[in-house]
Amino acid sequence: MNSPHSPAGYVLTLSCADQPGIVHAVSGSLLEAGCNITDSHQYGNPDTGSFFMRVAVETTTSFSRLREHLESVAETFSLNWQLHRAGAPVRTLILASKAAHCINDLLFLQRSGTLPIEIPAIVSNHRDLEPLAQFYGIPFYYIPVTPDTKADAEAALLELIAEHNVELVVLARYMQVLSDDLCQHLAGKAINIHHSFLPSFKGAKPYHQAHARGVKIIGATAHYVTAVLDEGPIIEQEVIRVDHGHSVENFVSVGRAVEARTLAQAVQWHAEHRVLLDGHRTVVFD
Amino acid sequence: MNSPHSPAGYVLTLSCADQPGIVHAVSGSLLEAGCNITDSHQYGNPDTGSFFMRVAVETTTSFSRLREHLESVAETFSLNWQLHRAGAPVRTLILASKAAHCINDLLFLQRSGTLPIEIPAIVSNHRDLEPLAQFYGIPFYYIPVTPDTKADAEAALLELIAEHNVELVVLARYMQVLSDDLCQHLAGKAINIHHSFLPSFKGAKPYHQAHARGVKIIGATAHYVTAVLDEGPIIEQEVIRVDHGHSVENFVSVGRAVEARTLAQAVQWHAEHRVLLDGHRTVVFD
Amino acid sequence: MNSPHSPAGYVLTLSCADQPGIVHAVSGSLLEAGCNITDSHQYGNPDTGSFFMRVAVETTTSFSRLREHLESVAETFSLNWQLHRAGAPVRTLILASKAAHCINDLLFLQRSGTLPIEIPAIVSNHRDLEPLAQFYGIPFYYIPVTPDTKADAEAALLELIAEHNVELVVLARYMQVLSDDLCQHLAGKAINIHHSFLPSFKGAKPYHQAHARGVKIIGATAHYVTAVLDEGPIIEQEVIRVDHGHSVENFVSVGRAVEARTLAQAVQWHAEHRVLLDGHRTVVFD
Amino acid sequence: MNSPHSPAGYVLTLSCADQPGIVHAVSGSLLEAGCNITDSHQYGNPDTGSFFMRVAVETTTSFSRLREHLESVAETFSLNWQLHRAGAPVRTLILASKAAHCINDLLFLQRSGTLPIEIPAIVSNHRDLEPLAQFYGIPFYYIPVTPDTKADAEAALLELIAEHNVELVVLARYMQVLSDDLCQHLAGKAINIHHSFLPSFKGAKPYHQAHARGVKIIGATAHYVTAVLDEGPIIEQEVIRVDHGHSVENFVSVGRAVEARTLAQAVQWHAEHRVLLDGHRTVVFD
Repeated sequence: MNSPHSPAGYVLTLSCADQPGIVHAVSGSLLEAGCNITDSHQYGNPDTGSFFMRVAVETTTSFSRLREHLESVAETFSLNWQLHRAGAPVRTLILASKAAHCINDLLFLQRSGTLPIEIPAIVSNHRDLEPLAQFYGIPFYYIPVTPDTKADAEAALLELIAEHNVELVVLARYMQVLSDDLCQHLAGKAINIHHSFLPSFKGAKPYHQAHARGVKIIGATAHYVTAVLDEGPIIEQEVIRVDHGHSVENFVSVGRAVEARTLAQAVQWHAEHRVLLDGHRTVVFD
Repeated sequence: MNSPHSPAGYVLTLSCADQPGIVHAVSGSLLEAGCNITDSHQYGNPDTGSFFMRVAVETTTSFSRLREHLESVAETFSLNWQLHRAGAPVRTLILASKAAHCINDLLFLQRSGTLPIEIPAIVSNHRDLEPLAQFYGIPFYYIPVTPDTKADAEAALLELIAEHNVELVVLARYMQVLSDDLCQHLAGKAINIHHSFLPSFKGAKPYHQAHARGVKIIGATAHYVTAVLDEGPIIEQEVIRVDHGHSVENFVSVGRAVEARTLAQAVQWHAEHRVLLDGHRTVVFD
Repeated sequence: MNSPHSPAGYVLTLSCADQPGIVHAVSGSLLEAGCNITDSHQYGNPDTGSFFMRVAVETTTSFSRLREHLESVAETFSLNWQLHRAGAPVRTLILASKAAHCINDLLFLQRSGTLPIEIPAIVSNHRDLEPLAQFYGIPFYYIPVTPDTKADAEAALLELIAEHNVELVVLARYMQVLSDDLCQHLAGKAINIHHSFLPSFKGAKPYHQAHARGVKIIGATAHYVTAVLDEGPIIEQEVIRVDHGHSVENFVSVGRAVEARTLAQAVQWHAEHRVLLDGHRTVVFD
Repeated sequence: MNSPHSPAGYVLTLSCADQPGIVHAVSGSLLEAGCNITDSHQYGNPDTGSFFMRVAVETTTSFSRLREHLESVAETFSLNWQLHRAGAPVRTLILASKAAHCINDLLFLQRSGTLPIEIPAIVSNHRDLEPLAQFYGIPFYYIPVTPDTKADAEAALLELIAEHNVELVVLARYMQVLSDDLCQHLAGKAINIHHSFLPSFKGAKPYHQAHARGVKIIGATAHYVTAVLDEGPIIEQEVIRVDHGHSVENFVSVGRAVEARTLAQAVQWHAEHRVLLDGHRTVVFD
């Protein structure tokens, strides 16, 4: 695919302090390296003075030479930057528990080519999803978690992450709170999903609370994992309508549907390198 | 419209403890009174054992005779019931402050025939909306509110409600908290609107908080007014998508749009007698 | 579940010419048979004078005795009626070709309990989906179709439908036009799905046409199969937004997502006996 | 606002044949002119080889000097380009007939600051909307149109467009077909709105056809006017759900709501210089 004679695609993402000349310098450096820009987004956050850019290019220049070439402009502007091979599957480990709705969609969309990810490992604290993993031919790791074994379980997980060069961890209804250390380690590289309501309901049995209040909309939020539970930077949100005739069980079923599609969308955007972190927010160049 | 020779339409709404025979008894009573059922919804809440019904009928029987006729079945089943003339405009008082977006939609949709309401009075604690009221030919009452005059202002409001036989009060961004007594007095007869987010943001400057968190959806909730602020039974909720490129001002502008359309929908359903109270929830027969 | 001592649930659906007394007579007959109405919808079409009703009841009366009991009222009002065991899975045969997106959702939602169907057979004119069928433990019938063998293939299909007492046929992207005879035979019992646009694009390569025109929304329509291609009564429609940055391939991928969720919703409503035919329209009591 | 000492904002939009170096040259030219890029979007259409760019900048350089400065790069790359003062209201003439729903939203959103337009004239072939124009203080021109006077009416319209330096014409349910010459003259500068369905219904009484078919979604399409009726480049589309219980009149009312909000969104994006023409499509940098 990346022969010297046919052009290959790359995606450059970067953020830095906003200042005159960034776009000019970056586009100039890409031009010098023989790149043709096929798609580009920029965004300057007026509140924080941060600048964000995503550029897709085509070129016969190799990945490593392009990387080298960009280092000079990166240094000049103190860029926080990444270069990716366009369409190269992101190595993604899926964490799940018993619920299958999110992982089923991820596996199906991966296989059908919608999600540019490859999945070297599925990790779960229960055995329920093992047949599904087998059907898709993906190694399944059963790592039970109890208060006593939590540290060991996370160590095992970290080992898998290292061994498989995992670039993204997706918590597909994992139902376990990660330790602060692990959250720190996975900052910007782990995506979680949870249901959301208008307004939100704190405490136990949120679906029962939402049902008792008669909400008309059930939503889901996909976000990066941070140490503060369910408070990480939001990547995507979606909703589905419900009405008084829906039982709590119907609410839960609708919640599963909206969780699955919201998580899949967030994973797709992340894997296409469309999501940049802007402090506690995300910039999504969709 | 309601001559002895051409049929007129009525809407009967009722709730009661669920028990066998209600539908049979009510439909039998309507049949005896010479009514033809043109539309009917029932719902039994399995959690609370409450039963709800909305029936639209056509008949040459007069309103008062039909009312009388239904009293017997109402007593037998201890019905909480109302009989309405179909399409008769609901006498609606609008409370507003300075913001025009909600009231502008209500007035326009009233005039264009979408909202079956008539508006004998607009009350505001500011003069900003007086020209709009004049354009639509609706009496405008300027009733300023300060901590000292709040009781007097509410008394004046109650007088207007009584004088104009007001059946519904719509708080179209009124921005004043009603007293507990007034909330009690208007229970099930006053609709409020406020913005909502996934998740919700408590405290000051919610749009700034939502923006800082990078929410992807802005919503609005229309609900009946209760003494607990913004916690009344939800009638309708809607959302509009936003993204990182939207400023706080854009968020506010989107919030206005979704508030206006959500409130208008809630008022329409209420005025069509489609909303029944089920404790802290609503049943909406849309 | 249906012991003499614990109540069972049934769903009665009916349509007939609108006339006074239907609801009273039906609810009376249900009352006599010891049924408690738990949910009920009625709708009278003012344009055609047709009346539609769906009643869910709980009773200790057996299915067969209830059926017998209702015959008298059915005769009096010339009802077109069906009685169903509530929640009893509808025997559903799935027709598919190579594309997996619709069938994958149907199988997953069936297994997770969202769709009250059971699937005795999957029929396809290609072998691609056999492993998926095996994973879910469902018999897979490979019935190739060529112009020459089409009649034989439909005969084989009809045999399977008879043998398995199939109540519903779902065309999950089957890509074959059924003969008029087969459409007739399956009237009201076969659901198809296809993409839709605002506006629609006739002729070949609709996604290319829609892309060339720059549509902003891609939709899908689930409908009952009739002899006129893609023109049967509409059960459900949904849409997803797209923009100029989406390629034709992205459009196709979005089209798959909206097809899958629209078809699943239509199948759910049908299997819950919420869809009644009203000439060329449907009445959906959701 | 544009003093020599405080920076002013400009928006540059351009399209050209895709080629290496465009972004670099444009950003370089902007940099030389003392501009800081605050927001930028680019898009290359891989099918047509066209390139599109929208750049928002801040600078103390004057409008005319910046214009002059950009001419050299514009010539080099054969740019089709426009420079706009950011936030400067676009001079917009509204064409309407009797229906008020679209124009009412446009006028309200203009006044509330959501739409960056100013409206020097409202033109209608009926007098119904004159009071609304007066309320908003906008000159109202009554120009009746009959087959005999159509040419004269269009001449009068063209005179108004010239006299008021009109930059955008909005057909807010004008209900008259413009001549080919006028369409040509207004290419890319006139926005029309019409209802849309999934699928579309050709011929008379589309709402009746859609109702007879039982559609579940009503949509609207805002597009640039071209000589082929309702076939111009699509700017925006939206939908609202309906169901079997909606009458044709309800359909029409829902159609009005979705037309109004879709047109307003299209006008906002156009007036913010976010819409670029790409042959028969639009590129919308929202």
